[in-house]
Amino acid sequence: MAIVLYDLAAAEDDRRFSPYCWRVKMALAHKGLAYETVPWRFTEKEAIAFSGSPTVPVIRDGSAVVADSWRIALYLESAYPQRPALFGGPEAQALCEFFAGWAVRSVHATALRVIVLDLFSRLHEKDKAYFRESREKRFGMSLEAYAAEPRQRLADFRGALEPVRPVLVQNRFVSGNGPGFADYILFGVFQWARVMSPIRLLEPDDPVYAWRERLLDLWGGHARLAKGFAVWA
Amino acid sequence: MAIVLYDLAAAEDDRRFSPYCWRVKMALAHKGLAYETVPWRFTEKEAIAFSGSPTVPVIRDGSAVVADSWRIALYLESAYPQRPALFGGPEAQALCEFFAGWAVRSVHATALRVIVLDLFSRLHEKDKAYFRESREKRFGMSLEAYAAEPRQRLADFRGALEPVRPVLVQNRFVSGNGPGFADYILFGVFQWARVMSPIRLLEPDDPVYAWRERLLDLWGGHARLAKGFAVWA
Repeated sequence: MAIVLYDLAAAEDDRRFSPYCWRVKMALAHKGLAYETVPWRFTEKEAIAFSGSPTVPVIRDGSAVVADSWRIALYLESAYPQRPALFGGPEAQALCEFFAGWAVRSVHATALRVIVLDLFSRLHEKDKAYFRESREKRFGMSLEAYAAEPRQRLADFRGALEPVRPVLVQNRFVSGNGPGFADYILFGVFQWARVMSPIRLLEPDDPVYAWRERLLDLWGGHARLAKGFAVWA
Repeated sequence: MAIVLYDLAAAEDDRRFSPYCWRVKMALAHKGLAYETVPWRFTEKEAIAFSGSPTVPVIRDGSAVVADSWRIALYLESAYPQRPALFGGPEAQALCEFFAGWAVRSVHATALRVIVLDLFSRLHEKDKAYFRESREKRFGMSLEAYAAEPRQRLADFRGALEPVRPVLVQNRFVSGNGPGFADYILFGVFQWARVMSPIRLLEPDDPVYAWRERLLDLWGGHARLAKGFAVWA
């Protein structure tokens, strides 16, 4: 039986934008596990109440229910040890946990300021008030103020990627020769943007650009085929 | 024959403060390799000219000469594969390379603003003009301006450690259950400070504090026994 993933959706059912759900979809594809998604909106708390979590990703795998992208990755690694590894050992797993913390603080935060108005405009109508209220409380300002000075916001985002560039000059992936969960953590941010915003995040001469292309190509274009905006050459 | 390390020294021969040399000393101890150090000052370029590098760390291991802490770690891992691993596999090595980039940009930079005047005051007299001139050029301001507002500088340093804290709550080391080169990268910064400055960098309830204690205790207090200032409880 296929694994079921509750997957954050926008106004259109097939526009799936959560960076955390993308981490999970890439991890499932990495392990070669079949999965089905259930579109879910921010305000459909009751639909995932069985998981004990107010947010997605949530997966149901037979009798197992797991929420939170990091816990899902650990679950998949432990439940499917014979499948390709997401981490490559305990040292890499601990460093990947650091990478996740860095990515959320530096990359998610700066990316959201670039795409927030595009993202808001494509949300399901029933989610818009929830999103505006919860995010404006978190940011301490209106969405419009948060997104102000877009050229500076884009420069901040590109600057936040600075520590990853030397790694991607030396290695094909953040995880070395092959992709791993650290790659999916960073890629989730780009897919979040690509699904919801036409803004050009990267210049083609950026080593992160070539890496993103490699991620978009994995497994027959698993992520590239998802509904989103083109990534310009 | 013991490995020889050219090791940055202050006014006193036994005050060894380079964070990059500390990475190497910890890596040598990790691998259980005997080594001797040669005290070296910034302005003694001719003493290490044989290495092709203007800066330390430089090691000589029989006929092999290697400069740069990252290259030395790769060399030790490849030359002594039967000794305890510094990385734990290619995935962890790639993630460690990211960690190094992050540490230099975020942690080294903020730490230096906290300790720079203490550090300067303890340099060998013949290094002071070199240090002031090269660093003031790099910073675009005087050392004194760079160190201004010390309370804010300390807050910046502590803030820069934010992404590492959840990892150190979950794991004993940045590299997981045991220490690895990522730990030595971060620890080098603390040892740099401890050797040259009495400033209290961490509060005892910080998870980074307990981790630093574990690093200071490794191999019979290898780093703790080095000449420096006490780390207060």
